[in-house]
Amino acid sequence: MAIKEGLRPGGRSARVQESVHSAVRALLEEQDRATVTVPQIATRAGVTPSTIYRRWGDLSALLADVALARMRPDTEPADTGSLRGDLRAWAEQYLDEMSSEPGRQMLRDVQCSATPGFCATIIGGQLQTILDRYPDQPLPSVDRLINLLAAPTVFSILFSAAALEIEELHRLVEMALSQ
Amino acid sequence: MAIKEGLRPGGRSARVQESVHSAVRALLEEQDRATVTVPQIATRAGVTPSTIYRRWGDLSALLADVALARMRPDTEPADTGSLRGDLRAWAEQYLDEMSSEPGRQMLRDVQCSATPGFCATIIGGQLQTILDRYPDQPLPSVDRLINLLAAPTVFSILFSAAALEIEELHRLVEMALSQ
Repeated sequence: MAIKEGLRPGGRSARVQESVHSAVRALLEEQDRATVTVPQIATRAGVTPSTIYRRWGDLSALLADVALARMRPDTEPADTGSLRGDLRAWAEQYLDEMSSEPGRQMLRDVQCSATPGFCATIIGGQLQTILDRYPDQPLPSVDRLINLLAAPTVFSILFSAAALEIEELHRLVEMALSQ
Repeated sequence: MAIKEGLRPGGRSARVQESVHSAVRALLEEQDRATVTVPQIATRAGVTPSTIYRRWGDLSALLADVALARMRPDTEPADTGSLRGDLRAWAEQYLDEMSSEPGRQMLRDVQCSATPGFCATIIGGQLQTILDRYPDQPLPSVDRLINLLAAPTVFSILFSAAALEIEELHRLVEMALSQ
C-alpha cells in the first residue's frame, strides 16, 4: 500500500523527487559541483541520504537525472508544416541548446551516469513525433536522423575546435531526406 | 641553450615526456584513476611536480595527453586501392578502437582536457591521408567525413543503448561518396 502510494503521480514519490531535484539545483547555483555531496543534498531536501541512494544509486546518476529533467523539452517539436522544416527547426534548436553551458554540462553528466542511453531515447521520442506527422511520405528512420543530425552536433561540441555550421546542418537534413 | 636542447627530439624534453607518460601508464594499471595525483606521478617519473604543471597545466590535460598518445595510430590508414574500401576500413577500425575500454576512457579524458579539438585534428589528418590517395576523383571534405563517420560512432558509444551497426556505417560511407 505504501509502495503503491509512493508511485502515484503527485504522490509521495513525486514529492520526494521534486524536493531532491530542487535541492540539487539550488546547491549547484551556490557552489562548485565538485563539492556537492549526497548528505548535503539530503539535508537540503529534507530526506535521508539512504532515500537518495535507494532511488538514484549514486551522486552522478542523480546529477544526470536533474540535468536531463532540465534539458527535457516541455513542448512538442515545432510544427512548420513540412518534414524538412520540422527537421531543420529541431536540429537548429538542438544545436543551440547543446552548445549552451547547461547543455554541455548535461552531456557530461549523462555520460558519467549509469544510463547514458536514456539521452538518445529522449531525442528519439522527439524525432518520432515529427515523423508521425507525415505518414504519407517516405521517411528516414529515427536512428538515421540521430546519426545525421544529433551525432555531428554533439561531436562538434565535445571534440572539435570549430562549431557545426548551420549550412552543414541543413545539408545533413537534405542527406537524411534524400535516402 | 638549455631550452633549445630541451626541445630537440630525443633530448631532455622528450625524455621527460616519456618518463612522465610511463609513470602515468604504470600508475593507472595499479590503482583507480580517481586516486592518481600529480605528486605521485612526479615521484614515479623522477621529476618535480612543477615540471608537470609547467608542461601540461593540470592533471586532466596530462591524462588526456597520455590517452591520445596511446590511441594515436602508429601506422597509416589501410590502403585498399579504392576510396570506398579505405573509408570502410578506417571507419570500421575507428568504431572498433573507440568501443574498447581504452577508447572510451580516451574519449572521457580528452573531453575533460583543455584541448578537445586536438582529437578531431588527429582524425582529420588520417582522413586527409586517405583523400590524398585519390586526387583524380570527386572527394567529400574531411569535415563531412568526420560528421558522417566519426560522429555517429562516438555518439553511439557515449549516448546510445545500442552500438552502431556495421551495415549503417557502410551506408554512411555511401552517403559520403554520393554527395
